[in-house]
Amino acid sequence: MALTPKPSDNFTFGLWTVGYNGTDPFGGPTRPPLDVVHVVEQLAELGAAGLTFHDDDLFAFGSTEAERRAEIDRLTQALADTGLRVPMITTNLFSAPVFKDGGFTSNDRAVRRFALRKVLRNLDLAAELGATTFVMWGGREGAEYDSAKDVRQALERYREGVNLLSQYVIDKGYDIRFAIEPKPNEPRGDILLPTLGHAIAFIDSLEHPELAGVNPEVGHEQMAGLNFAAGIAQALYHGKLFHIDLNGQRGIKYDQDLVFGHGDLHNAFALVDLLENGGPAGVPAYDGPRHFDYKPSRTEDESGIWDSVAANMSNYLMLKERAAAFRADPEVTAALAAARVPELATPTLAPGESYDDLLADSSAFEEFDSDAYFGGRGSGFVRLQQLATEHLLGAR
Amino acid sequence: MALTPKPSDNFTFGLWTVGYNGTDPFGGPTRPPLDVVHVVEQLAELGAAGLTFHDDDLFAFGSTEAERRAEIDRLTQALADTGLRVPMITTNLFSAPVFKDGGFTSNDRAVRRFALRKVLRNLDLAAELGATTFVMWGGREGAEYDSAKDVRQALERYREGVNLLSQYVIDKGYDIRFAIEPKPNEPRGDILLPTLGHAIAFIDSLEHPELAGVNPEVGHEQMAGLNFAAGIAQALYHGKLFHIDLNGQRGIKYDQDLVFGHGDLHNAFALVDLLENGGPAGVPAYDGPRHFDYKPSRTEDESGIWDSVAANMSNYLMLKERAAAFRADPEVTAALAAARVPELATPTLAPGESYDDLLADSSAFEEFDSDAYFGGRGSGFVRLQQLATEHLLGAR
Amino acid sequence: MALTPKPSDNFTFGLWTVGYNGTDPFGGPTRPPLDVVHVVEQLAELGAAGLTFHDDDLFAFGSTEAERRAEIDRLTQALADTGLRVPMITTNLFSAPVFKDGGFTSNDRAVRRFALRKVLRNLDLAAELGATTFVMWGGREGAEYDSAKDVRQALERYREGVNLLSQYVIDKGYDIRFAIEPKPNEPRGDILLPTLGHAIAFIDSLEHPELAGVNPEVGHEQMAGLNFAAGIAQALYHGKLFHIDLNGQRGIKYDQDLVFGHGDLHNAFALVDLLENGGPAGVPAYDGPRHFDYKPSRTEDESGIWDSVAANMSNYLMLKERAAAFRADPEVTAALAAARVPELATPTLAPGESYDDLLADSSAFEEFDSDAYFGGRGSGFVRLQQLATEHLLGAR
Amino acid sequence: MALTPKPSDNFTFGLWTVGYNGTDPFGGPTRPPLDVVHVVEQLAELGAAGLTFHDDDLFAFGSTEAERRAEIDRLTQALADTGLRVPMITTNLFSAPVFKDGGFTSNDRAVRRFALRKVLRNLDLAAELGATTFVMWGGREGAEYDSAKDVRQALERYREGVNLLSQYVIDKGYDIRFAIEPKPNEPRGDILLPTLGHAIAFIDSLEHPELAGVNPEVGHEQMAGLNFAAGIAQALYHGKLFHIDLNGQRGIKYDQDLVFGHGDLHNAFALVDLLENGGPAGVPAYDGPRHFDYKPSRTEDESGIWDSVAANMSNYLMLKERAAAFRADPEVTAALAAARVPELATPTLAPGESYDDLLADSSAFEEFDSDAYFGGRGSGFVRLQQLATEHLLGAR
Repeated sequence: MALTPKPSDNFTFGLWTVGYNGTDPFGGPTRPPLDVVHVVEQLAELGAAGLTFHDDDLFAFGSTEAERRAEIDRLTQALADTGLRVPMITTNLFSAPVFKDGGFTSNDRAVRRFALRKVLRNLDLAAELGATTFVMWGGREGAEYDSAKDVRQALERYREGVNLLSQYVIDKGYDIRFAIEPKPNEPRGDILLPTLGHAIAFIDSLEHPELAGVNPEVGHEQMAGLNFAAGIAQALYHGKLFHIDLNGQRGIKYDQDLVFGHGDLHNAFALVDLLENGGPAGVPAYDGPRHFDYKPSRTEDESGIWDSVAANMSNYLMLKERAAAFRADPEVTAALAAARVPELATPTLAPGESYDDLLADSSAFEEFDSDAYFGGRGSGFVRLQQLATEHLLGAR
Repeated sequence: MALTPKPSDNFTFGLWTVGYNGTDPFGGPTRPPLDVVHVVEQLAELGAAGLTFHDDDLFAFGSTEAERRAEIDRLTQALADTGLRVPMITTNLFSAPVFKDGGFTSNDRAVRRFALRKVLRNLDLAAELGATTFVMWGGREGAEYDSAKDVRQALERYREGVNLLSQYVIDKGYDIRFAIEPKPNEPRGDILLPTLGHAIAFIDSLEHPELAGVNPEVGHEQMAGLNFAAGIAQALYHGKLFHIDLNGQRGIKYDQDLVFGHGDLHNAFALVDLLENGGPAGVPAYDGPRHFDYKPSRTEDESGIWDSVAANMSNYLMLKERAAAFRADPEVTAALAAARVPELATPTLAPGESYDDLLADSSAFEEFDSDAYFGGRGSGFVRLQQLATEHLLGAR
Repeated sequence: MALTPKPSDNFTFGLWTVGYNGTDPFGGPTRPPLDVVHVVEQLAELGAAGLTFHDDDLFAFGSTEAERRAEIDRLTQALADTGLRVPMITTNLFSAPVFKDGGFTSNDRAVRRFALRKVLRNLDLAAELGATTFVMWGGREGAEYDSAKDVRQALERYREGVNLLSQYVIDKGYDIRFAIEPKPNEPRGDILLPTLGHAIAFIDSLEHPELAGVNPEVGHEQMAGLNFAAGIAQALYHGKLFHIDLNGQRGIKYDQDLVFGHGDLHNAFALVDLLENGGPAGVPAYDGPRHFDYKPSRTEDESGIWDSVAANMSNYLMLKERAAAFRADPEVTAALAAARVPELATPTLAPGESYDDLLADSSAFEEFDSDAYFGGRGSGFVRLQQLATEHLLGAR
Repeated sequence: MALTPKPSDNFTFGLWTVGYNGTDPFGGPTRPPLDVVHVVEQLAELGAAGLTFHDDDLFAFGSTEAERRAEIDRLTQALADTGLRVPMITTNLFSAPVFKDGGFTSNDRAVRRFALRKVLRNLDLAAELGATTFVMWGGREGAEYDSAKDVRQALERYREGVNLLSQYVIDKGYDIRFAIEPKPNEPRGDILLPTLGHAIAFIDSLEHPELAGVNPEVGHEQMAGLNFAAGIAQALYHGKLFHIDLNGQRGIKYDQDLVFGHGDLHNAFALVDLLENGGPAGVPAYDGPRHFDYKPSRTEDESGIWDSVAANMSNYLMLKERAAAFRADPEVTAALAAARVPELATPTLAPGESYDDLLADSSAFEEFDSDAYFGGRGSGFVRLQQLATEHLLGAR
């Protein structure tokens, strides 16, 4: 039966997600816009902890200051009324025609300056609302054609932009960190920083790398055929998982943004297991918001929106229960040991051992019986995977 | 807990599947060969109903008649001892160097003649063993380079071959039907008849289309990013699902041949639901063998082989239970009705209605309220999918 | 230098292609609408032969009869003024909210009836304008979730619809054939008839299969990782290439709709070679319109639209020249012979040879030297592909 | 006509590439082994500059020291006789059964120790032969199943290994740098460090990041649907392009290892343009070997091997000529300027400008005319791409 979320579960939703009106490349809206106050009330009612948004989600691109402020005030009041928080906000640098060739990396310098101004303004709003994460998805930072974009200059401009924003945050004393969201393609033919690996490599080149991490999205990494749970593990390894976008994707195709749990279930199970049980001694490896960045299917009316909100959270909680049972099962513990999974935590060299010691250890090479691995010393991975499958399916 | 199969479940395994020795493009065998008698005994012990094989799996390419007969006799005895059947056999036209450019469609006519002879010989063996399905996977029928293969001539030679084999089966009075197995690529850059759709279109051009159907494999269709359950439904629609290959694949990449249930779980659930409950009034839509064409991972020793055999069958049975519960749940029935899924079985025109009648029906067009679908008349698909997810996960 | 097209080259463009306003999933229009008369004049000026359109491209969904007629009349006059033709038209069953779950296969019967009425009306317009091909792209005929759509019932409703439309065309005496356009996904998670193979298999089940063929699109087949030229060859083999959509796609991702020649160049070369030189004795294998179904990139203003129109035609003509040179080169002829490509046209059995004769021919099997293919009898495919590459690059 | 390479072009080939015997997942060898001396002589004859190899390519896994030394001496003599160099070598940690779960990251600590010993030994050989790059492709470092591998511990062991090897190189005074070769999958379901981005992020975590870079392979990045030229640009941006593997791949599928230029031609053109003209003022951006890591197709006999060797080099040279002509064409220069490509090199902020200055510049935001980008200020990318296409095709 569906599990009921609590604010302490820290589930958050983008205003653009529940607010998706059904527009896609082959058709217009199938639903009218939702008012932000209604959204806040509904999310609170369903057990969510927070709302996130792009500037343009709340007030239309080109709004006057009065229009902008009116919408901010309505939101602030709704938050106060419901207890919902705004832990993250982000700036839309992709929808308006001015950004058709990108924001930070548009070939057009005037557009780059405009983009920086738009973000600076929204950083002030983030601080005002108490958001501590500022996501940057550079959906238009890329190209369809190889000669249209000097990728190295584009990265240099990207870096210039993030450096400036970082200095601004430092100088203002804002408690805000940046989270770059990678995506391999769509809407551009190829997008800069296409995977979380590329993004972390880029972050390492910044003036203030400690202020920037990644906000990986399930579907975006899977659009490159990559294992999302493995990618998240690498982001955690580098201390760079600053935020996460949960949803569902069914293979390499357009960005589906399905409900979390309606995509690759094995990988969703592994992800929840990692997030919830992956820290030392089985504590959570990530303590930030569980943020859903998905789209209620275009076929649905408003009831389908709230059904999908509930489904995202319920599926996460269901997988969390299953992962806990998996970790608690003595047969699993035995199978993990048989597969030598815990042995990977033992350093390859003994404490104090040097390469000279290793070279002198004939048991490691000269006398090592590599033939024993033919027809023997099986890894036991199939048995382990079957136990995981049975726990995932609630069959143990 | 793992479910135990019975022969009446009709699970069958390829000799080459459990016999896979671990060779892949980057490494040689990690396991010694398994004797066929041992395989038959183990499969029987684990609850399987049948064994299938390529000629070269049982006796090496180039065996003398005596060698060949000795292996056949050993197999026949093992089958008699265990009660296992051989419902399907197939011919290897892809491993030997002579087939490097294909069998039926090699540019080299002498190779094509040799290939036909090899298959004719194996058809006699199929009849001798009582196999009623003869699978044809044309893994080498294709090309890496567009000008290397005249595709239309290749299809014509393919057709010539299948026509000849069909006539042979008819003339000999064999109770054998052919099942073509599609695959988009690997080992050739592009393979002829890359999907089940292409194969059925080709079959319709044969002299005896009634003798040929398809043997789709989960991973092969998914390597083209296609929905396997939807493809199987189309094959059933055309009366062409003559056999099926079950396994697991995780996205568009090399052919993984994982255990069934270790790949895309949502699609596996839909597939089992279709096969088991998709016939009129919920009876099975397919009554042939549930054949596993997979590879025990190269990391495993022999115990991993038998673990994976058991896992394939157990996962199928688990999904069968879940699908039965899904179909029996009154909430699911209500959700299906709300989503108008059963309404699709009602013809669009009323009994006896002509297009003139339709044109005269102003309620169908002139007075039809298409605006009501904006913001209303939601499909309820998300709710239905969530119910499916919960049944799949055993959470209801 | 860019080659100049003539109307006899039979290049045609969709009104929705040059009329694309830049809307995509992450942004609105970047260009104002183009008037149809302006489009017709520009296309004529640039050397195109024809225009194609969906009903909703010319007159908005829900137009009154007067509004509709006014637009038709303006188009008719522009055609008369310029000499442009309308060889194909099609109906939009995917943009309006009413079609959110499809047209012919919507679960909602009232929608299916409305869809048929919309198409019937547009068939009359096709006849009025002299179009002889009616394309059907079922972009919304599909599902995101497996249990939301009974695929077999959907195919049955699809079949009911096409049967009705075919009978209408026959009874009215219209000189119109139907061309089904396959696509694997986008905007639905999985679309029915996902490849040209699936579509031809379906067509073979119709009451009037002779009236239906396929309209394959480069990018759509390549979104399934399939070789477009090979697919077109199979469509030609079955006599089902009724129309073709040319564009460019760079791999498995969202539908890019780039200019023809800006995607996979090797496959584009093979395609043009097939279309232009693939008939007996090197005549064209397809004599219908060379139709471009692409999108001028969202980054462009109106000048980019006309640049892209010219580029589509120029690239086709350039590849046509290259393919002609390839076929005329004696070294290519020799390399094709060495690769035994023409030998594939020789039947595998000799004239009058039976399978008994083949079985009696010991040179085909018992005495056949299959070992000679190890280390010998190389196919010479790399050399052939290199010649193709050099001709494609204009380097010979 | 085919262009003739010279040693100064710095083309190098792997011994395993020309030595590929045709084995693939569905068939054994189609060619006998080639002797290394013959390979060296042929490569020198055809104009190559160097040979590279894995230890196991030259002397079989498990060779005695005498066997090993005999092969090294034969190679050394052949190099001396021909003038060929060995600029890079690498160690095979993926073929032998002992490495079935990886080398540096095997769950089995004894295997990890054995792997380090094997690499240390080969580093000495690299130094002996004067190789300055040591490639590490971790093809077995990964998993098929998410719970089988603790990714963070695996990365920690990987890091331990590379740190140890780096210290060894430093202490020995070897002039050797490490180049990690990423690959997303195959032969493992998911491989660690799946793209060059992930690899660079990992490298930044090493004790001696200056000693490690990447060795990206065309096909490997394209197996993740990523733009290879864009990835190389990012690697250059980070100063991490230590070596490069050139070949051809046709989309997301198994690792094809085609001849360079027989895959995605647009991307190959962009790559050569970047490598040869991408440095300041149009000088080469990379001065290392142009290394081909490809496989002569299994259909070929030995003549096809040498044809493919020549084709790789000839295609590179052909694209180099075309790229030079592209850069020299005044129309291209004008089109690049119109597309504002060079403007991306201008910093977004003026010299000395602070974010306060930017915030005070009303022309950047308050008075900026973002509406002008609707219907205007087109990027001119299509025209530029068409010029690139025409230069690529030798049509200007």
